Amino acid sequence: MVKLLKAKEAAEQVYDSVRSKVERLKKEDVHPHMAAVLVEGDPASLYYAQAKQKTAEKLGVAFSLHTLPSHTPENEILQLITRLNDDPSVHGIMLELPLPGHLQAGCITAAISTLKDIDGVTPANKLAVVTGEAGLYPATPQACIQLLKHYGYNLEGKKVTLVGRGQTVGLPLFHMLQRENATVTVCHSRTPDLAFHLGHAEIAFVAVGRLHVVKGAMVHADLTLIDAGINETEEGKIAGDVSPEAAMVAAALSPVPGGVGTLTTAILFQNLMKAISLQSKEAHRK
Amino acid sequence: MVKLLKAKEAAEQVYDSVRSKVERLKKEDVHPHMAAVLVEGDPASLYYAQAKQKTAEKLGVAFSLHTLPSHTPENEILQLITRLNDDPSVHGIMLELPLPGHLQAGCITAAISTLKDIDGVTPANKLAVVTGEAGLYPATPQACIQLLKHYGYNLEGKKVTLVGRGQTVGLPLFHMLQRENATVTVCHSRTPDLAFHLGHAEIAFVAVGRLHVVKGAMVHADLTLIDAGINETEEGKIAGDVSPEAAMVAAALSPVPGGVGTLTTAILFQNLMKAISLQSKEAHRK
Repeated sequence: MVKLLKAKEAAEQVYDSVRSKVERLKKEDVHPHMAAVLVEGDPASLYYAQAKQKTAEKLGVAFSLHTLPSHTPENEILQLITRLNDDPSVHGIMLELPLPGHLQAGCITAAISTLKDIDGVTPANKLAVVTGEAGLYPATPQACIQLLKHYGYNLEGKKVTLVGRGQTVGLPLFHMLQRENATVTVCHSRTPDLAFHLGHAEIAFVAVGRLHVVKGAMVHADLTLIDAGINETEEGKIAGDVSPEAAMVAAALSPVPGGVGTLTTAILFQNLMKAISLQSKEAHRK
Repeated sequence: MVKLLKAKEAAEQVYDSVRSKVERLKKEDVHPHMAAVLVEGDPASLYYAQAKQKTAEKLGVAFSLHTLPSHTPENEILQLITRLNDDPSVHGIMLELPLPGHLQAGCITAAISTLKDIDGVTPANKLAVVTGEAGLYPATPQACIQLLKHYGYNLEGKKVTLVGRGQTVGLPLFHMLQRENATVTVCHSRTPDLAFHLGHAEIAFVAVGRLHVVKGAMVHADLTLIDAGINETEEGKIAGDVSPEAAMVAAALSPVPGGVGTLTTAILFQNLMKAISLQSKEAHRK
């Protein structure tokens, strides 16, 4: 019987910490404010933005949703981002992805101020994850590791298999796992024998973004699985990258929904608090 | 009996290609020029700089060696780099590492023009290696892969173990191996069972920088070893990270000296040619 690594409790702990920081900041007349930029087109993006808005309200964080029509030209989006960068009342900027096809995410993310980049998408923060320097790291890979730690896991010296090497989750997670001193094997769509590499793993992270890509026959009874996938089933339900059959075999699994995604939202607000602290340091430095 | 993957022939092929490019460029009145910045202190650095100088002469490439006393303050080094950045007759800048203890390599490498950064040490080029964008990639990891390819190896789908996760060789090599579609396991000083991870590898790259860290008992008869280590033995000889006992067991091994290091020097000049092409594109863009 698989042990479910649910994220609710870990997320609540993050929210408690954020809530008390928000209160403290407000006493210093700092009113935390997250801005989300949503270029219309992807229905899931609107859902995620609205979910953040609800959470922000509960935390006493101001939230502004900047919705642009799907055909908005790049320069108008860049103008909006520049305005948010320059606005001292905005502390964090979240660009909802994916963008419509005519837009290059790389150019637009690069325009976000490094100190307001609460999902770690700018070049400077992407590089910080690689080198281990201070910065704002992407939320999902942070959530993957923080969830395990919440359940008392120690990654030091562990055999870890990471399935997926995307720029958003897989690669930053690889670098963060280096800092935990795990020995990591990175598998991907061109790995001929995924079962072999899951076979020698103690812990596996799955961040492919394809429904049920990890099958029952690939896993073993001592394996802990962290599922960072968010997919839609034919019935329109949210499901992860790990199949129900694999879940039956493994020792432990983070569920989808209710696992990594739940903690990711909380960590975005944790990053917002960090962003405010970085901005304050920068202001004092000047 | 181990097959030795010597680099001489591969390096000669690179030099032939560089030589013909240099001739073509000179007809267009472009005189390729590599500048090396050497802050005194490390005897090996002087040796490497002089080796590059000799090679440059053979290739018809101008070479300027800028030697600074070991106690030179950071701002003077930065001034020199700015001067080399701004000098249109200089096409490539190579900062000899390691630097004396009072200097922060990060600040100084960041000052080098991205388009003249022939050893891929600037933030922009470090990030390009991660994302796979065009740029100047560090020479040693390139040499590791190019040497294997010279001998007809295909990395696609292969089980690869990488020993070492340094910023200079290990991590960029990891990212380049992703582009080759290898399945890579990254081992390091905190990996409890290096022998296990070499056991399941078809190809292993060793870039630790510690004499004979790979022992005979760790390797098997089907393993190909690429040794990127350069160490000094007690007798003052150059030797790699792979022990002679491991070399006896393995299927193939790149020797030290005469392997990766030999090709690395050639690739620096290949990068210089690439730098000239990038600078010319940039000049046309303006």
